Amino acid sequence: MEKDIISIISKKEIILASQRIKKHIHKTPVLSSEIINKLLDSNLFFKCENFQKVGAFKSRGAVNAVFSLDSKEIKNGVCTHSSGNHAQALARAAKLRNIPAYIVMPENSPQVKIDAVKGYNGIITFCKANLKARESTLKEIRDKTDAIEIHPYNNYNIITGQATAAKELFEEIKNLDIIIAPVGGGGLLSGTALATHYFSPQTKVIAAEPEMADDAYKSFYEEKFIPSENPQTIADGLLTSLGSITYDIIKKYVDEIVVCSEEAIVEAMKLIWTRMKIIVEPSAAVPLATILENKFDYKNKRIGIILSGGNVDLNKLPFIK
Amino acid sequence: MEKDIISIISKKEIILASQRIKKHIHKTPVLSSEIINKLLDSNLFFKCENFQKVGAFKSRGAVNAVFSLDSKEIKNGVCTHSSGNHAQALARAAKLRNIPAYIVMPENSPQVKIDAVKGYNGIITFCKANLKARESTLKEIRDKTDAIEIHPYNNYNIITGQATAAKELFEEIKNLDIIIAPVGGGGLLSGTALATHYFSPQTKVIAAEPEMADDAYKSFYEEKFIPSENPQTIADGLLTSLGSITYDIIKKYVDEIVVCSEEAIVEAMKLIWTRMKIIVEPSAAVPLATILENKFDYKNKRIGIILSGGNVDLNKLPFIK
Repeated sequence: MEKDIISIISKKEIILASQRIKKHIHKTPVLSSEIINKLLDSNLFFKCENFQKVGAFKSRGAVNAVFSLDSKEIKNGVCTHSSGNHAQALARAAKLRNIPAYIVMPENSPQVKIDAVKGYNGIITFCKANLKARESTLKEIRDKTDAIEIHPYNNYNIITGQATAAKELFEEIKNLDIIIAPVGGGGLLSGTALATHYFSPQTKVIAAEPEMADDAYKSFYEEKFIPSENPQTIADGLLTSLGSITYDIIKKYVDEIVVCSEEAIVEAMKLIWTRMKIIVEPSAAVPLATILENKFDYKNKRIGIILSGGNVDLNKLPFIK
Repeated sequence: MEKDIISIISKKEIILASQRIKKHIHKTPVLSSEIINKLLDSNLFFKCENFQKVGAFKSRGAVNAVFSLDSKEIKNGVCTHSSGNHAQALARAAKLRNIPAYIVMPENSPQVKIDAVKGYNGIITFCKANLKARESTLKEIRDKTDAIEIHPYNNYNIITGQATAAKELFEEIKNLDIIIAPVGGGGLLSGTALATHYFSPQTKVIAAEPEMADDAYKSFYEEKFIPSENPQTIADGLLTSLGSITYDIIKKYVDEIVVCSEEAIVEAMKLIWTRMKIIVEPSAAVPLATILENKFDYKNKRIGIILSGGNVDLNKLPFIK
């Protein structure tokens, strides 16, 4: 398996992906906060994917996937099921390439997400809000349209695209002791781990996960795939369980997985908002939450943190009483 | 009067201030949002003083004022009355110079602001929450300690410090058609106007003010000083009226003052939060609010906007229903 991954998502492929997506994504800034560093006795470098196109790292993978396919493969468009950032990111990438994007969305999706997908000319099909309905509806769409399915994380081109965030971080900040990313389906984490393997092999890869959706943590340490069942966490980007591809990469290239409480996520989010004056979604605060709960040895270390996204519903902020 | 101002706050003085404060403040980034630009058919460049030390441009003036004084003048410390960002900024600047800062704060000041001043070793005296009590308490403190009063805006060194924000913006973004700053006491606006006069004289200076606290607007167009009486606006950094010095500078070096509604302030704030993923306080959203309400000719123009600060109470967000 190692040989496969290394040949499919090679160092060269990640470099090519960086070049391929360059025109269509932001090179996001890396920010630090003296106050947070002082508070934690550490050196944290935040890679701000909350400033990314559509407000999340998902744009990297989606653009890479859509632009990796040749025009014949892609002529009937792309499709996926998603209620989150991947839906927007894929619709946007498809629009850039002037092909249709068929998005299956659960009928209870927030209006703001529906509007965003429509804003990128995404063609939405609504379905019941469960995985089975999402998958069967997607299959119907695929059969009808011959569009190519772009899975939000269990897809090599998606993972390769997500890897470019860590690559940029390593180019800007040298000698990181640790890099830490949140884990949901594992696309960002897999990409981050592979980018670390190629571009900064001395850096330790840590994954951060909510206790309330800890399938990656369990699967990693119990050495078998244990998906979450109906997880509940405010980190709504991390509700999904690992996929087969991401699980294989994570087993091999991630050093440690740590978990945090819901309270710590809110606390970390508040710290980032008030001290750094930037907006991050709960999922993006999960790595800092694990530091606040002292889940690994972070003191006096140089730590890169991927702030995965900034899409929050301002009417439902967890720290508003 | 022109001769006086030009000789007191000369081009050289602003350059010296930039050098003086450099070590102690952030050179803040300039951000743009494609989505907002497209929406408004314009080119907006946001100077992010919300990322400044203590979360507001006030750090520039305070550091400049404290470090402009010689050690004999300043040996008994500095004092001011303020419930806002100036209190923190002055306490921090004094701490950097290792002198005491005596801060008179109204007894109803938010706990978070009190804590912040204490965090910088500021020596707080509480008073009743009205201007008369603030002034008489400050006089007592001044008489007792011989500390030098640093007024939040009606002070040449403060204005010179605030001018450095626009200077940095002009260095980074060339050929601005317009620069726009919010106006409360007028320290930021005066500094911005003078920096424009020296460093980008072809740029038009516009001031933005809430309708609900429109003393600058009235004073400017009625050509006499008309202070606000008990103004009520969510832009809590803009409640103060102009000072004698700032009014004189504004009369001469500002081209236009425009006002906006409270609704537009909330709308602009929301737009910045959701589209740019950065946190700004209501006062900082006032310039964009005037654009949303079409208060001057902004289409297809290159416009610099000073985002004055990012200190908000997350429990009292105006757009939370």
